[in-house]
Amino acid sequence: MGHNSFGTAYTVTTFGESHGPALGVIIDGVEPGFKIDEEALQAEMNRRRPGANPTGTKRNEIDQLSILSGTYEGLTTGTPIAMILYSTNQRSADYSHLEQVFRPGHADWTFFKKYGVRDIRGGGRSSGRETSARVAAGALAKQLLAKRGITIQAGTVQVGSVIAEKRNWDETDNPMTCPDKEASEKMVALIEQVRSENDSIGGIIECRINGVPAGIGEPVFGKLEALLSHAVMSIGAVKGIQFGDGFACASMRGSQFNDQRTSDGFLSNHAGGILGGISSGQEILFQAAIKPTASISRPQQTVTKQNETTSLTIEGRHDPCICSRAVVVVESMVAITLLDLYYTAFGKA
Amino acid sequence: MGHNSFGTAYTVTTFGESHGPALGVIIDGVEPGFKIDEEALQAEMNRRRPGANPTGTKRNEIDQLSILSGTYEGLTTGTPIAMILYSTNQRSADYSHLEQVFRPGHADWTFFKKYGVRDIRGGGRSSGRETSARVAAGALAKQLLAKRGITIQAGTVQVGSVIAEKRNWDETDNPMTCPDKEASEKMVALIEQVRSENDSIGGIIECRINGVPAGIGEPVFGKLEALLSHAVMSIGAVKGIQFGDGFACASMRGSQFNDQRTSDGFLSNHAGGILGGISSGQEILFQAAIKPTASISRPQQTVTKQNETTSLTIEGRHDPCICSRAVVVVESMVAITLLDLYYTAFGKA
Amino acid sequence: MGHNSFGTAYTVTTFGESHGPALGVIIDGVEPGFKIDEEALQAEMNRRRPGANPTGTKRNEIDQLSILSGTYEGLTTGTPIAMILYSTNQRSADYSHLEQVFRPGHADWTFFKKYGVRDIRGGGRSSGRETSARVAAGALAKQLLAKRGITIQAGTVQVGSVIAEKRNWDETDNPMTCPDKEASEKMVALIEQVRSENDSIGGIIECRINGVPAGIGEPVFGKLEALLSHAVMSIGAVKGIQFGDGFACASMRGSQFNDQRTSDGFLSNHAGGILGGISSGQEILFQAAIKPTASISRPQQTVTKQNETTSLTIEGRHDPCICSRAVVVVESMVAITLLDLYYTAFGKA
Amino acid sequence: MGHNSFGTAYTVTTFGESHGPALGVIIDGVEPGFKIDEEALQAEMNRRRPGANPTGTKRNEIDQLSILSGTYEGLTTGTPIAMILYSTNQRSADYSHLEQVFRPGHADWTFFKKYGVRDIRGGGRSSGRETSARVAAGALAKQLLAKRGITIQAGTVQVGSVIAEKRNWDETDNPMTCPDKEASEKMVALIEQVRSENDSIGGIIECRINGVPAGIGEPVFGKLEALLSHAVMSIGAVKGIQFGDGFACASMRGSQFNDQRTSDGFLSNHAGGILGGISSGQEILFQAAIKPTASISRPQQTVTKQNETTSLTIEGRHDPCICSRAVVVVESMVAITLLDLYYTAFGKA
Repeated sequence: MGHNSFGTAYTVTTFGESHGPALGVIIDGVEPGFKIDEEALQAEMNRRRPGANPTGTKRNEIDQLSILSGTYEGLTTGTPIAMILYSTNQRSADYSHLEQVFRPGHADWTFFKKYGVRDIRGGGRSSGRETSARVAAGALAKQLLAKRGITIQAGTVQVGSVIAEKRNWDETDNPMTCPDKEASEKMVALIEQVRSENDSIGGIIECRINGVPAGIGEPVFGKLEALLSHAVMSIGAVKGIQFGDGFACASMRGSQFNDQRTSDGFLSNHAGGILGGISSGQEILFQAAIKPTASISRPQQTVTKQNETTSLTIEGRHDPCICSRAVVVVESMVAITLLDLYYTAFGKA
Repeated sequence: MGHNSFGTAYTVTTFGESHGPALGVIIDGVEPGFKIDEEALQAEMNRRRPGANPTGTKRNEIDQLSILSGTYEGLTTGTPIAMILYSTNQRSADYSHLEQVFRPGHADWTFFKKYGVRDIRGGGRSSGRETSARVAAGALAKQLLAKRGITIQAGTVQVGSVIAEKRNWDETDNPMTCPDKEASEKMVALIEQVRSENDSIGGIIECRINGVPAGIGEPVFGKLEALLSHAVMSIGAVKGIQFGDGFACASMRGSQFNDQRTSDGFLSNHAGGILGGISSGQEILFQAAIKPTASISRPQQTVTKQNETTSLTIEGRHDPCICSRAVVVVESMVAITLLDLYYTAFGKA
Repeated sequence: MGHNSFGTAYTVTTFGESHGPALGVIIDGVEPGFKIDEEALQAEMNRRRPGANPTGTKRNEIDQLSILSGTYEGLTTGTPIAMILYSTNQRSADYSHLEQVFRPGHADWTFFKKYGVRDIRGGGRSSGRETSARVAAGALAKQLLAKRGITIQAGTVQVGSVIAEKRNWDETDNPMTCPDKEASEKMVALIEQVRSENDSIGGIIECRINGVPAGIGEPVFGKLEALLSHAVMSIGAVKGIQFGDGFACASMRGSQFNDQRTSDGFLSNHAGGILGGISSGQEILFQAAIKPTASISRPQQTVTKQNETTSLTIEGRHDPCICSRAVVVVESMVAITLLDLYYTAFGKA
Repeated sequence: MGHNSFGTAYTVTTFGESHGPALGVIIDGVEPGFKIDEEALQAEMNRRRPGANPTGTKRNEIDQLSILSGTYEGLTTGTPIAMILYSTNQRSADYSHLEQVFRPGHADWTFFKKYGVRDIRGGGRSSGRETSARVAAGALAKQLLAKRGITIQAGTVQVGSVIAEKRNWDETDNPMTCPDKEASEKMVALIEQVRSENDSIGGIIECRINGVPAGIGEPVFGKLEALLSHAVMSIGAVKGIQFGDGFACASMRGSQFNDQRTSDGFLSNHAGGILGGISSGQEILFQAAIKPTASISRPQQTVTKQNETTSLTIEGRHDPCICSRAVVVVESMVAITLLDLYYTAFGKA
């Protein structure tokens, strides 16, 4: 299987570059007879699209999703579902000044070294726009999971020094999808300040998954944490992931960390809802570290193709903090992974 | 492909339970004509085996590795290499008291829910002993990487509140494989104290990889961080992973985090040696969070198969801290992953 | 990996139904820096398209191929190449009469039993039109193989009782791509007669591959015959495949069948250019049995969804013999398979 | 996935060379809670072992199978099942005379070209002995299929000019597992004559599969014929495969070949029980062409490593006709493939 595919039972294969004619995804393995809610699909696309979130880029793009195959009279048929997103603004900017130089923090250098050729328009395949195909596949997976009572909810819990203290997951209707309303307001203010300084900033996204029955996850290499980590760490901006108490477990004792249990259920959830790589039936909980956006409109040192030192200031309207738009991407990769493992464990009926 | 396999070009498939007759691994895709250093393989096995490390369990086991196929007159032939580890002490303890009860922090409950049947002897397939097959495959991968100038070195950098301040990677000849000699001594003392309290403790393992050329990693789902995370998070004790500055990036600015560059090379390595999922040629650096060992000889609340609350005290000689023995397991999973991606990017010549 | 994907190093994933908005393919693993000849791609599409071959259906369709991703300034970039074929005539006929009945010889019954829902328009995913995506992927593979000196040439060698005696592979410019000009004329005449009788007829396609170096094929399950058989037998119309002397070997002695050899090379090629599942450097030769087209305009007995016996006469303009149009499909599946195994054995450089 | 693995839901990975210490297989994906009949497993091994069949080699080998993992108290646990076969007679003959020369009809030349090194002892990995691991995996698959009412039965229907006319599948208790008792006797006589002439001879094996429900097979690349062909053509001795009427369809009309149907069921089975790559619920039927054994004790021309012409007479006790022993290998590959697709279509419950 190629490395642009993910999953074995719900297999997602994506294609497309930032400024190519289209991006899209083929999903193989969708159960037949399911009625896709196309409006809900599009609503998920809109959560990620540039211009929709006040804390994101000011560029405005329409990400209109079309289904090309795999349905008949509104129902899935069990054959591959292809979804496509045409680019509406292909020509846009002139990127020729990036032909000879590598943007710091971007994949420009490594793509050039790996492939020899490189699509310089908006980062080509390494652009964050690539994740739109994942959101399409994830949005469908969410519908198929919801049918089984499984819900996925992510939100920003840290931006810079602003840390969400609360976990009001019913009150995330704010630009950061943050479960702490006051923190959200501080995050937005901080991001605007960072934007005004032509800089960017990182953060942390937390994700909770509910309704997962015990039994999902495939030891030893398809453990639930392993596949969720693979999925989430394949998002360009993510630099770390931790489940349950995560890195804090380094200073904990076994007598603290072990989740004891009585006939009424588990007494705690330090493990994040996974034991031995298999869901325990508890809430699954993890956090992902989001790096500051690489594109900043400040002079930075870099080199040319001829390895000469130069200074580069990236122009354009970039995201000062990608957390708000990355929330749905994290959820999407989780949905794809969970459905794949659900199908594997329990079948498609 | 089944979920007991990992990798596409250097494919590792493992089998075996803690107290079964044998554990082992089949490795498919090894380049032909390579002379395996069998002594070095065994030396790696010994780093993990119970009884060898003073901070680990006092149980003493011999993990003698045998090669069953794939070589001729000392050279690899390009056909699958099977390596096996026979159990020397199968009968050992009586485990019947665990038939009706689920050990807290272990996979007992989730395996039972998933499979219906469960090998109770030493945790069966969910035992840490399963990782011995990974070490065998990783030890061979290390030799194949060393031939290409790539070295992998992990060590313990935190146990409880003891944090290694130094990174003297040439002075890790201590029980923790810790790059800070003084910290190592404190870690050992802390672990002995924890042992005397019938408890266990967590820690952090750091891993550095050197000599990796630019170009390793396969966007978008086979990104280097994604596959390393998959590999490392599939180790039972690991609850988190972070690359470069990791979670600290949440409070950093783009102007701090971006690794700028001059004609002399990169000026920093916040990204951990990976850009856009592809190695940049810099040192690759990550940390893994290791949870406290689940087996502790203290009474803990749990339930029986009939969901009645009960108290369980786990007897036996367990590892009060698994970090020292997990170091080689982390290195092994890294080696398997890197070689797989190296083969994919550069072939087997 | 889903079952709509094929190959591990040159991975082809297809989608699309006969009368859906589009069919297409994502190809993962194409070497970077290759200049695609788009005219040659389209020329291959035209070999398969309805209406172009006098012995095929009289329906006239334009199969215009578009590349959506994976190239930059005319060169492949190493990222997935998506190619798409929009349907120009979606509404076309009224298929509602097929809702309640299963066409004999078609996949109507088995798709219905398997998936519960079924796209009745032109057979949906089970239509021969599905192979157009394979031809697109195969046409690109052919270009990448030609660069390496490998050529694939198939042709019809039997239709009904008309058997090609000659193998003039330089003179196949006839409607059947038959290496025997006189036989070709008889085939055409026979097919027209069959058409006038509202019937269809089968045939045999032969395929020769030249320029393949010794060493292609991956024992034990990726043997060259095994993967070519998988590939060719996945074409709907094919019911058998044989390599070299094929079924005739059943009545041969080892002393006849073994290909002996002197310093000047092999003395014969009974094995069809493959030994132990690996190419020997000789010409690779196989034949595929093509069944008569299932759609015939004669009354046939079948059943309704309610399992009531009924008679069905399929209207429309169908292929009386699919051989002429299947030649390029066979070549395409061979090209995909060979390039995949070539990449595996020799890399992408 | 490596090319020594087969299947996605019931994944078989084999290892081992003819004269290495052991051959074996890891099976990933076996349903938990199944009671393996170990005696029946061994009985299948015995059908293939050298020395058991009067028409095979006179070498006598004991193929004693051991299960190393994946069971607990006699039941499968859902973890990988490893089965191993130790070699009892490793040293046996002196093979050094084959170091410099390539046996005609064998994989010696192609393995040497592909891998550079080559295990000359009995053909190494290219030996027919490799199939013993497949028989082990197939024998287990048969038990799991039998539980579901599916039976697989193969037999020899042609050896040289002796062709079985009858299909008495209840009377196959003869050395050829031939459904025609008289033909079987003639086959045995012919084989003994061939043996006395130091020659070998080919044949045809037919396989029928009963009890398969409609719905097995995964279009478009996992079609039932495609995967069965992959499986069967990966057996070294097989040079062709045909389903239902097979190559005879080339001279048939659609009006003859289509399997019409009434409310009482199908009126014929020209397609071999598969429509559109999916089982129709009818008997599945195919034939495989078996080439004459390559090892014959007659002088044959070949070349040395230095490409000098030489004559080689292969000594030893070889199979004059491999059909009798290949029957169980064909059945085994069918069982592996069917169970894999059964699990995919209907789950493991």
